[in-house]
Amino acid sequence: MSFCAPVQDYEYIMRHIVGYGKVSATERFEEAGEELTSAILTEAGRLCEEVLSPLQRNGDLDPARLEDGVVHTSTGFAEGYKAIREGGWISVAASPEYGGMGLPMAVTTAVNEMMSAACLSIALNPLMTQGQIEALEHHASEEIKAIYLPKLVSGEWCGTMNLTEAQAGSDVGALSSKAEDNGDGTYAITGQKIYISWGDNDFSENVCHLVLARLPGAPAGTKGISLFLVPKFLPDASGEAGEANSLHVVSLEHKLGLHGSPTAVMQYDGATGWLVGPEGGGMAAMFTMMNNARLGVGCQGIGAGEGAYQKALAYAKERKQGRTPVAGGTGAIIDHADVRRMLATMRAELFAARCIAMANAVAIDMSHATSEPDWAARAALLTPITKAFGTDTGIKVAEIGVQVHGGMGFIEETGAAQYSRDVRVTAIYEGTNGIQSMDLVGRKLMDGGEAAHTLIDEMQRFAEEARATRPRMAGLIWNATETLREATEWMVSQKSMTARFAGSVPFLAAYARVLGGYYHLCAAVSEGSNGPRTKLARFYINRLLPEYKALLDHAMQGDADLYALDIEDFDVA
Amino acid sequence: MSFCAPVQDYEYIMRHIVGYGKVSATERFEEAGEELTSAILTEAGRLCEEVLSPLQRNGDLDPARLEDGVVHTSTGFAEGYKAIREGGWISVAASPEYGGMGLPMAVTTAVNEMMSAACLSIALNPLMTQGQIEALEHHASEEIKAIYLPKLVSGEWCGTMNLTEAQAGSDVGALSSKAEDNGDGTYAITGQKIYISWGDNDFSENVCHLVLARLPGAPAGTKGISLFLVPKFLPDASGEAGEANSLHVVSLEHKLGLHGSPTAVMQYDGATGWLVGPEGGGMAAMFTMMNNARLGVGCQGIGAGEGAYQKALAYAKERKQGRTPVAGGTGAIIDHADVRRMLATMRAELFAARCIAMANAVAIDMSHATSEPDWAARAALLTPITKAFGTDTGIKVAEIGVQVHGGMGFIEETGAAQYSRDVRVTAIYEGTNGIQSMDLVGRKLMDGGEAAHTLIDEMQRFAEEARATRPRMAGLIWNATETLREATEWMVSQKSMTARFAGSVPFLAAYARVLGGYYHLCAAVSEGSNGPRTKLARFYINRLLPEYKALLDHAMQGDADLYALDIEDFDVA
Repeated sequence: MSFCAPVQDYEYIMRHIVGYGKVSATERFEEAGEELTSAILTEAGRLCEEVLSPLQRNGDLDPARLEDGVVHTSTGFAEGYKAIREGGWISVAASPEYGGMGLPMAVTTAVNEMMSAACLSIALNPLMTQGQIEALEHHASEEIKAIYLPKLVSGEWCGTMNLTEAQAGSDVGALSSKAEDNGDGTYAITGQKIYISWGDNDFSENVCHLVLARLPGAPAGTKGISLFLVPKFLPDASGEAGEANSLHVVSLEHKLGLHGSPTAVMQYDGATGWLVGPEGGGMAAMFTMMNNARLGVGCQGIGAGEGAYQKALAYAKERKQGRTPVAGGTGAIIDHADVRRMLATMRAELFAARCIAMANAVAIDMSHATSEPDWAARAALLTPITKAFGTDTGIKVAEIGVQVHGGMGFIEETGAAQYSRDVRVTAIYEGTNGIQSMDLVGRKLMDGGEAAHTLIDEMQRFAEEARATRPRMAGLIWNATETLREATEWMVSQKSMTARFAGSVPFLAAYARVLGGYYHLCAAVSEGSNGPRTKLARFYINRLLPEYKALLDHAMQGDADLYALDIEDFDVA
Repeated sequence: MSFCAPVQDYEYIMRHIVGYGKVSATERFEEAGEELTSAILTEAGRLCEEVLSPLQRNGDLDPARLEDGVVHTSTGFAEGYKAIREGGWISVAASPEYGGMGLPMAVTTAVNEMMSAACLSIALNPLMTQGQIEALEHHASEEIKAIYLPKLVSGEWCGTMNLTEAQAGSDVGALSSKAEDNGDGTYAITGQKIYISWGDNDFSENVCHLVLARLPGAPAGTKGISLFLVPKFLPDASGEAGEANSLHVVSLEHKLGLHGSPTAVMQYDGATGWLVGPEGGGMAAMFTMMNNARLGVGCQGIGAGEGAYQKALAYAKERKQGRTPVAGGTGAIIDHADVRRMLATMRAELFAARCIAMANAVAIDMSHATSEPDWAARAALLTPITKAFGTDTGIKVAEIGVQVHGGMGFIEETGAAQYSRDVRVTAIYEGTNGIQSMDLVGRKLMDGGEAAHTLIDEMQRFAEEARATRPRMAGLIWNATETLREATEWMVSQKSMTARFAGSVPFLAAYARVLGGYYHLCAAVSEGSNGPRTKLARFYINRLLPEYKALLDHAMQGDADLYALDIEDFDVA
């Protein structure tokens, strides 16, 4: 089985569903028309198929390891990284000023998803660097930019994010790493950070850590946090990696999956760092990095799901088992109704999630390329949805992929289980999906629900227009948007955040469910025939969409029933 | 964190929900009253807490391995098995004639679930032997029974099931292992079997394999299959394990989970075996074993979910993170609404699944102890539901358990991920959950839906009575049963099996969802106050029950949309 990059799917979505044409119509992205983006996606697809996909199993079977303080990466990863770097795939969206392609996030998003589908472990590495590039572009001094950005953009150096400490996970404000002013423009960073993805490697000349820490006398909580750039090797006078800094990898985690990606405990012992952004501005700067990382992680979920889907499809076409229940069947298990149902579910869910991610990327691009303020709000609204729904979809799809394989799915050699193990972390890192849902019903509804309602209006208008050509599907989508509108109003009307949070996860899931249905309807309308997209849209809208009702029932329960449970009521006896 | 056997929960369910009193009122089970069953469950609980639970991590960290043809089991498993054996826990339901306790399946079911919660890998071993005991009790000659049953019942010898071959998984009828008559009452068995759970071990004196094979000239398909008992060591004149038979373990599988349970490829090279049941009666005999094994596997799912729940609960009570959103909180993450929602979901789902399994066991007991024919039909109806819903629940709950742990959930040392990995196979073996759902809408509705409707009637009558005391919850359950009735009628009316199969998985899920709601309502009514069970019932009925509508929408789509998709429509480009 060989991986096939779903380039046509991205192109279709960009052209016909999420209005990428608006992006390439802007001055900023005028060069990124259909021809160029098509050539770029095709080229990236080739890298994924030929170079990265063969590394997928290596990462699992030959995990990154720490020996005598040195991280050794999985067999072939150094060559894989070199190919990513040389193709310019780390810096598709980075500013041309420092060597990037300066292309829209929509293109980056497709490339990142493909790389994740081919080999999630290695794809996580450039995602971290991309976040760092963006944070430095926005918040670093010109001096820092001049030294670091060319190296990061070219991929000679890699970037990481250092937020979490043992006592400070979802609650970043609880962190206690310290920074002291050295009086020479540098700071001494001391503390221990955990869960540092790609905290070190043996294939880049340097590893640059963005570290959250507190200056002396800083206030408690997130307001007292500043951001520091702390490289493994201090740049010398010529800007090359020089003397080793006072930091090291303490250990690598033994994880459920993603074994090819070293997850480090990092120790900083008065390591030399540079302030990025203002004192106390660490969280703001980190959020620049995190928002795009959240879109990126959503795409990791979708990508891993795509890999799992292709593997399951290949198996279902090849495995002969049981009588063929249909005339003219293939004789393989894809003939069985339930296997078809599983495969169609995987494909329909991935399409929905991919459209959401692409719409998110387009909103980011439009917010960068125009001065229309609604685009930033749209991007902010979609980010937690892309992250949570993209990763939940990846987990669900990979899980179905295991089931399609039957007994073989439980055997590691098959590789189906690896998708399921690898993708699992995507619902946890970059803010758990619970945190994403709290972000959606909290921060992202602080505009009184305006951004959420604007998108619902858009869906509803489209459904009204679509009644002419797709009456049944359009009617179902219209009804769904109406129920979603009422639930959104209910959410906004809750003054108690706890009442919102008591239903935030199902609310996010329902919003994504309806949004996915809307994009499927867009596909059916634009296809204009009874083609594959229309058939898949019908499957999604008839079979998967109806979940939104139960999810919204769940979302609007409030918190009383949860807090009526005493702690002892949870106990087992 | 230490495992706590949920003995009070089983007792409550037996006494107040599933009518265990009917079982102990029969002559056959008159000794198994409340006092005895309570003492037995308490004693089994102690074994699980003190002996088996400490083995859970060993199985994962120190997997069973094959060295020079010999299976070495995980550290401590031999002692664990000895304790299970000596406590009589293999043969709770086995006939006293051969040394069993002769107790109801309801008791066995609770004991099996507890053992699975404590250590799933080791608990799978006695489950296999239990199935073999039952198959031999029903189908073997007196001579075979006299030799084998005392050894199996005492646990000196273990049992396995050998159905699957590389080309014959869900389609058992495709198997090609051969049996030839030796002319001396024995048969020579030749072939290779895969996925043989506990195919060998280093702690029992013998391992007895029930092997499906074909006699010369047997018809193709399942009708040509006979069942043979093929021991690792041939019994000598005194009935002890004697000369080695011509069979061996070829290899052990490298699996996603359940590492403590050796999954063998077994090779039979003219191995000596004895026919069990009539020629060509292999499938019928195997179904005796499989039906109870399916109930047992359902309980494995529930048990593993229970283990995962307790681990997540302990973590949620201990982990401090973020501000407490409620007055008088504990300061730990259990104070957060979404964490509570997750924990309550786990507990409510487990309660629903446990009640279904217990009701299934009671139906089996009543079918054994009385001549009322409805009980066998009830047991047959519930078996695929228990298996599929029990294991899907285990998987869902273990998955939520990982999420409750945040980043720690992805780190193997925590142990949360192990529950998720271990339980995954339960949706696959003993007939995939897809096969269970086909069994439900196919074979189990061949009575025109009578058994399914009888249970719906029972639920509906109860909901009508419950309106007096629990009007809101009862109303929701009544509505659900009515929709379920219509969907069941729709299913029965489909002449095309493919049309049924196209919705079988969501139909089974919906039936279980509603049934679980009914049992929650029973708990709320029987508790009669606003106690913990009532609060949990409210949570389930308000938040989880509504799923049934979308599931039934999905179930009643028919197969047209699935087969409208051409094979090429699934392809990626």
